[in-house]
Amino acid sequence: MNLFSTETYIERRKNLKKFLKEGVLLFLGNEESSSNFKDNWYPFRQDSSFLYFFGLDLPGLAAVIDIDADREIIFGDELSTEQLVWHGDKPKLADLAGAVGVSQTRPWMETETYLTRASHRKIHYLPPYRPENCLKLMQWFHLHFDQLPLHVSEEFIKAIVALRSIKSQEELGEINKAVNRTAELHRKVMQLARPGMYEYELLGLVNGEALSGGGGLSFPPIITINGQTLHNHHYGNRLEEGSLLLADFGTESAMHYAGDITRTIPVGKEFSETQREVYEVVWNAHKVAIDALKPEVRFLDIHLLACKKLVEGLKSLGLMKGDVEEAVREGAHALFFPCGLGHLMGLDVHDMEDLGEAFVGYTDELKKSTQFGLKSLRLGKELVKGQVLTVEPGIYFIPQLIDSWKAQKWHNDFINYEKLEKYRAFGGIRIEDDFLITANGSTILGEPLETSPQEVESLRRNLD
Amino acid sequence: MNLFSTETYIERRKNLKKFLKEGVLLFLGNEESSSNFKDNWYPFRQDSSFLYFFGLDLPGLAAVIDIDADREIIFGDELSTEQLVWHGDKPKLADLAGAVGVSQTRPWMETETYLTRASHRKIHYLPPYRPENCLKLMQWFHLHFDQLPLHVSEEFIKAIVALRSIKSQEELGEINKAVNRTAELHRKVMQLARPGMYEYELLGLVNGEALSGGGGLSFPPIITINGQTLHNHHYGNRLEEGSLLLADFGTESAMHYAGDITRTIPVGKEFSETQREVYEVVWNAHKVAIDALKPEVRFLDIHLLACKKLVEGLKSLGLMKGDVEEAVREGAHALFFPCGLGHLMGLDVHDMEDLGEAFVGYTDELKKSTQFGLKSLRLGKELVKGQVLTVEPGIYFIPQLIDSWKAQKWHNDFINYEKLEKYRAFGGIRIEDDFLITANGSTILGEPLETSPQEVESLRRNLD
Repeated sequence: MNLFSTETYIERRKNLKKFLKEGVLLFLGNEESSSNFKDNWYPFRQDSSFLYFFGLDLPGLAAVIDIDADREIIFGDELSTEQLVWHGDKPKLADLAGAVGVSQTRPWMETETYLTRASHRKIHYLPPYRPENCLKLMQWFHLHFDQLPLHVSEEFIKAIVALRSIKSQEELGEINKAVNRTAELHRKVMQLARPGMYEYELLGLVNGEALSGGGGLSFPPIITINGQTLHNHHYGNRLEEGSLLLADFGTESAMHYAGDITRTIPVGKEFSETQREVYEVVWNAHKVAIDALKPEVRFLDIHLLACKKLVEGLKSLGLMKGDVEEAVREGAHALFFPCGLGHLMGLDVHDMEDLGEAFVGYTDELKKSTQFGLKSLRLGKELVKGQVLTVEPGIYFIPQLIDSWKAQKWHNDFINYEKLEKYRAFGGIRIEDDFLITANGSTILGEPLETSPQEVESLRRNLD
Repeated sequence: MNLFSTETYIERRKNLKKFLKEGVLLFLGNEESSSNFKDNWYPFRQDSSFLYFFGLDLPGLAAVIDIDADREIIFGDELSTEQLVWHGDKPKLADLAGAVGVSQTRPWMETETYLTRASHRKIHYLPPYRPENCLKLMQWFHLHFDQLPLHVSEEFIKAIVALRSIKSQEELGEINKAVNRTAELHRKVMQLARPGMYEYELLGLVNGEALSGGGGLSFPPIITINGQTLHNHHYGNRLEEGSLLLADFGTESAMHYAGDITRTIPVGKEFSETQREVYEVVWNAHKVAIDALKPEVRFLDIHLLACKKLVEGLKSLGLMKGDVEEAVREGAHALFFPCGLGHLMGLDVHDMEDLGEAFVGYTDELKKSTQFGLKSLRLGKELVKGQVLTVEPGIYFIPQLIDSWKAQKWHNDFINYEKLEKYRAFGGIRIEDDFLITANGSTILGEPLETSPQEVESLRRNLD
């Protein structure tokens, strides 16, 4: 198992305890996840907060930090001989716990006993996102499924968000590994994609290479000629000369830190004139957003800045019209950019998304907008040194959305629906890189990957 | 979506209704499965019985066959425009249902309404293996988690087992595709594995190639130099000259039918003398088992026949001693072969394992043994024409099991513990192929893959 130093985990838990003065903090590890029958498992993925505070990358664990009793315990079972025959040996739980600085371990069954004895005190738990962990909480706390969110601990969430949002040097080392490997695989795709291939062949390449490097992927790849579908997990199309290919994927380091990059390339050797024009618009928004990254600036404002740059570009193409500021304020750009500019990244590709965007990306004062487009912005609050995030503007031509807006005459003052007809089959373009917020600005994570149309085309030149 | 003809699904449901005279049959499709946060999904896998009777390979569906009302309904929701922006368009539910011969569709929320109205009648449900489906059943039927198994419908299980156990020609076509692709990938691994590689590089190769072919894998691959661990999902070891490499994996066809093959090869160009000797023992058991496959023979007896062949071989190597029949009756061979000879295969690699081995592999008369080794035999009952199954004998040297038995002096009359010491680090050998039970015997599925030590070594000759 890959672990940071024992002191790292001790320190993280010590810092956590500074936020929470009393009660019992409950950490639920994840279980194996079944696909088509109980023992046919998806690859195991440990819970990221469990990894952050307790490091152990194994199923069947829970942990508590009992602040009142000044006690840390990891709950889990040793292997039976029979389990060992099927699944191989593993170190004793006490040795595993010792490696992350926890001196007490108890059998799994005692988790419930411990929590029952503590039931007169405050027991803090996090929002469960796996149904098996919902079932545990329902049983232990005698709650109905619908009641689980009511008892989630905001204090606990806020403390974890505060700690996990700021990346340490050793974490940045891991993230850099993930981003570099991600960029390498993107370069392969950018060189190997060719007309006649199917999307799933590139999916196989990415998946296989990620596993061959000893890691995995941080999310299901998007590798598609239909880039206008934001989270497209279909891979059945044939790549045709003239199309665009949008590839959005990231690897995980061995310690499960994520990378996340997007590039959009021509399936042939060169962008068409129209494709290049739209690409330049997205790239300009990308650059203006990156230049604006620095502490104490709200990411919401950087998002809006990028949106304005997109509108300016779309105006120059004749697809939008009217006042830029007003168009963005009214949300007219969301026809082309119905999502957010980026998100925090770390142990999760959308870092801490399980803890809730209201806490991770917003504050008690700054709430998320409900406007179409803006409501999909995962991160709005002021940036802080040490945060890691993505910047990923895009322009998407979504025929069904265009038809729906056009029929309702939405934003007729800002959108040139007539001109738009020619772009119906265009697809989508997104450009995404990963950044660290520094004292005065930002630095890109990993070795920069080819981005400009010229650089992209230079990788396509050897196509036969 | 890949579907058989509309008539196929109509026919299957008609056949099912012949078994069950009344009540409501409830089919729960699967949902997307979360890894480290709710919207970070593992690849979607539909429930196999849902696929068999309703074909639709999409999340968020349920179906009922209401026998009393002579009505079939698929429950599910249409996409909102917003979902479409993120996940792409899909056909209308009515069109999807029509393609599998179901004329009625209703919104998802009405599943509960329908079941509530039917609550005075018998509602048949299958054993849930996904926690999200447990939660649904708990809510709909007001049951506690522990009560779910008590209300599972044995009649429903038995009817499905009867139907799914016998493969149609079109199903065999799919299985042959999966097995052929599986064999091709095995041949690649057998040719490309070399000293200095890490196991995860081969995992990447297999995973990537499977996806590149447009399908996936039927279970998490076992690709290991520690073949003695039966379900080894660790891939971190370096392949060293002199070791054995055990590879046990299978692909799925586009329609989710499984293949499942195992080969064990030398990491270098040739087996050592000791490795070849043990390989021959396993191969002899493999051959004797295959020769015995035919209708009306209990697979339990074929398993025992293979065990005897293994004991004969182990005796010739000086590792076992005494009477062969008695050794097998007492379970002494299970030190080397602690698992079963094979299992049914189809839409699941362990076909219908979610429905319960008591129904799938055994009968009301023939119950599974509780003896160590035999209790892991998934299939015991009489074979029937049209079944598809694996044959996978092996010999495993499991140091911890050897130590445990030796310390307890178990089966001292049959096991030569002294001689065994030299084999502690041997690893394990398994040979596995897939078969169809025919009128008079069996035929191997797919184009046969190299099996004999000579054939295996012929694939290793080009190693540099």
